[in-house]
Amino acid sequence: MEVINKFVSLKAHIDGSPQETDFEIVTETLTFSIVAGSKDVLVKNIYVSIDPYQLNRMKSLSSSQTSGSSYAVGVALGQAIDAYGVGKVVASGHPDFEKDDLVIGLISWGEYSIVKEGSILNKLNSLGFPYSYHVGILGFSGLTAYAGFFDICKPKKGEKVLVSAASGSVGNLVGQYAKLLGCYVVGCAGSQKKVDLLKNKLGFDEAFNYKEEVDLKAGLKKYFPDGIDIYFDNVGAEMLEAAVGNMNSFGRVAVCGVISEYTDKGKRAAPDMIDIVYKRITIRGFLAGDYMSLFPEFIAATTDHLQTGKMHALEDISQGLESVPSAFAGIFRGDNVGKKIVQIAEE
Amino acid sequence: MEVINKFVSLKAHIDGSPQETDFEIVTETLTFSIVAGSKDVLVKNIYVSIDPYQLNRMKSLSSSQTSGSSYAVGVALGQAIDAYGVGKVVASGHPDFEKDDLVIGLISWGEYSIVKEGSILNKLNSLGFPYSYHVGILGFSGLTAYAGFFDICKPKKGEKVLVSAASGSVGNLVGQYAKLLGCYVVGCAGSQKKVDLLKNKLGFDEAFNYKEEVDLKAGLKKYFPDGIDIYFDNVGAEMLEAAVGNMNSFGRVAVCGVISEYTDKGKRAAPDMIDIVYKRITIRGFLAGDYMSLFPEFIAATTDHLQTGKMHALEDISQGLESVPSAFAGIFRGDNVGKKIVQIAEE
Repeated sequence: MEVINKFVSLKAHIDGSPQETDFEIVTETLTFSIVAGSKDVLVKNIYVSIDPYQLNRMKSLSSSQTSGSSYAVGVALGQAIDAYGVGKVVASGHPDFEKDDLVIGLISWGEYSIVKEGSILNKLNSLGFPYSYHVGILGFSGLTAYAGFFDICKPKKGEKVLVSAASGSVGNLVGQYAKLLGCYVVGCAGSQKKVDLLKNKLGFDEAFNYKEEVDLKAGLKKYFPDGIDIYFDNVGAEMLEAAVGNMNSFGRVAVCGVISEYTDKGKRAAPDMIDIVYKRITIRGFLAGDYMSLFPEFIAATTDHLQTGKMHALEDISQGLESVPSAFAGIFRGDNVGKKIVQIAEE
Repeated sequence: MEVINKFVSLKAHIDGSPQETDFEIVTETLTFSIVAGSKDVLVKNIYVSIDPYQLNRMKSLSSSQTSGSSYAVGVALGQAIDAYGVGKVVASGHPDFEKDDLVIGLISWGEYSIVKEGSILNKLNSLGFPYSYHVGILGFSGLTAYAGFFDICKPKKGEKVLVSAASGSVGNLVGQYAKLLGCYVVGCAGSQKKVDLLKNKLGFDEAFNYKEEVDLKAGLKKYFPDGIDIYFDNVGAEMLEAAVGNMNSFGRVAVCGVISEYTDKGKRAAPDMIDIVYKRITIRGFLAGDYMSLFPEFIAATTDHLQTGKMHALEDISQGLESVPSAFAGIFRGDNVGKKIVQIAEE
C-alpha cells in the first residue's frame, strides 16, 4: 500500500539554539508492503513528544566528538527524525500488532512511521487517560522524574528539594512527587507566569524566576535558609554551581539534563569541588532508559495519584505536524509550560 | 608539672600556596596539673601527620565564607595547630591512659600536646609495625584510600582506574589496593622520579607526568584506550575534566581532595555535564571520618597485605619540629613522595 506522508527533517546540523528554519517539511510517498520475514509495522502518528535531548542528536559530528561522546544516534539530514509517541496501526507484518491497535513507542516527527522490527513499539492500554498523557506524565517524562527523584535522589520526608526548569516536562513532575512525599519544594523557572503556576496549581512551597535573580547563590539562600538536600538539575551551568554552594552535607544532585549547555558548547558548570568534598555531595547523571524495571511501579503510583487528584498533568500541546519545528525551537526559548507535545492527527 | 614546649603556629591566614614564612616556632612553658574532674592527657609527640587539608583550615574567614562552607574548625593565629599523630603519655588525668602509654589521635604540630577530654585519643597497638605507619598507611591516609576506593568507587576486578597525585599519601595506597583487586591502574604524578616509582616499586600498570602532557584529555586516551571506569581524584580542576571526558558509562569519580584548587580560589573543575548525563557518571565527595566503622576491616586487610609483602608503605619523613613548615609548604610544591610525616622525637 502507499500513503502520502509528510515528515519533519533536518536541513543542516545545529550547533547553537535551534531555529524553525533548521527544519523543513518533506512530503514523500511511503510504500509499505508486507513481505515474508518482515515484521515492519505502519503506524499513523497521533501524538509525538518534543524533547530537548533531541538537540544533542542534531549536532554536527565534530561538535559531539569535541564533547567526548557520541550521545544517542545522530539524526541524518533529510531523513525522518524518530521520536517517542502514540499512534495507531495502519498495517502490520508483526504478529503482535494488527490494524487499529493503539501503540506507543519510537515513531517519528511525521504523519506516518514505519517501525522496524527490534525498535521500541508496544500496544498501549490508555487506562482511561487521554492518549497524550502516555507521552508525558505516564511516559518517559514521568519515568524520568520518578526514577531520577526516587532512585538517584533517595529523598526522605522533610528534605529540602530544589528543581530547575520546574515547569518543564520532567521538573513539574519531580516537584509534585516531592510534595507528595512531604518534602519542602522550591522550583525555579523563567517567567512569572510559570512561577505562579508552580505555586498556585502544583503546590510548590516556593518558586522564583531565575532571570530576576542577580546573585543566584544568595537568591537560593533566601529560599533555603536551612540549605538544600536535593537538587534535581535540568539546566546545568550557574544554577548547579549555586545549588552546590547552598547544599547541606550529604546533599544529592541528580543531573537529568543541562539544557543551558545543550545550546552553548562553551557553557559549563564549575561547582566548587571543595564543597563537594567537605559536604560529601554526590552529583549523578542518569537516563530513564536504565530504569525500565521501575515502569510498572511508576505507572501504578502515578495513575493512582492522577485518579485521586493528587497529581496534575501539565501539558502544552500544539496542533499539526507543521508546528513541530516551532514547538522544538520554543523549548529552548522557554516557550512551553509543561510537557511539550504535538498532536499530529485526531485520536 | 611544667615542660618547655615548642610548637608551630600560624602568623596570618593563607589564601594561596603556603610558605615556610607563614609559620613560626613558638616556645612556651606548658603547665600541666591533674585537677579533680579533669581528664586531660599530656602527650609527648613522636610522629605528626602533614596533610593538604590543613590548608583549608588556615584560610581567612572571608575566603572560606566565599566558598560556601566553613570546612573544618579554623586554625587560630598564634595557637598550636592540632594534627593527627603518634605520641607517648607523659602524665594523665584520664583513667584510660597512664604514663608511657603509646597513643594515637589528635595531637599537634608541637613537641607536646595537652589532649582534652572528648578529643580523639586512643591507645596504640603498633602491631609490630613502625609507629609512623599508624600515621599513614595504617592511619587516616590508609582509611581514606580504603573507604574511598572500596565504598565510593565500588570497584570490580578488571576495571580501569585512574589515580591522581598517585605518589601522594592516599593516591599510592589507592593504586596498590586497586592492583591487588585486579584492576588496570594508571597513576599521574608530577615528576619522572615519581612516575618511575609508581611503575617499578608499586606495580602500577602505567604512570605519567601530568606536567609533560600538552592535552590531558588526549593524553589520558593513550593510557585508557578502552576508557576509564574509576577516577580517584586528589587534584580537581583540569584532570577531573579530562577524566570525565575519557570515562566509560557508569563511571565513578571519588573526590578525595582537590589540591590544585586549595591554593587557588579561582580554580575550578568544569566537567562536561553532558558527559555526566549521557554516561551516567557519578561524582562523589567523601571524608574518611564518616567511615570509622570500616576501620577494623581496613586494618585487618592492610596489615595482612603488609605482612605478606603485597603492599608497601611509601613514607617521606622529615626530622624535627622545625621542619614542619617546610614539610607542609612542600606538599603543595609536590616535594613529598608518599606520606609526609614529621618525626618530632625519638621513639
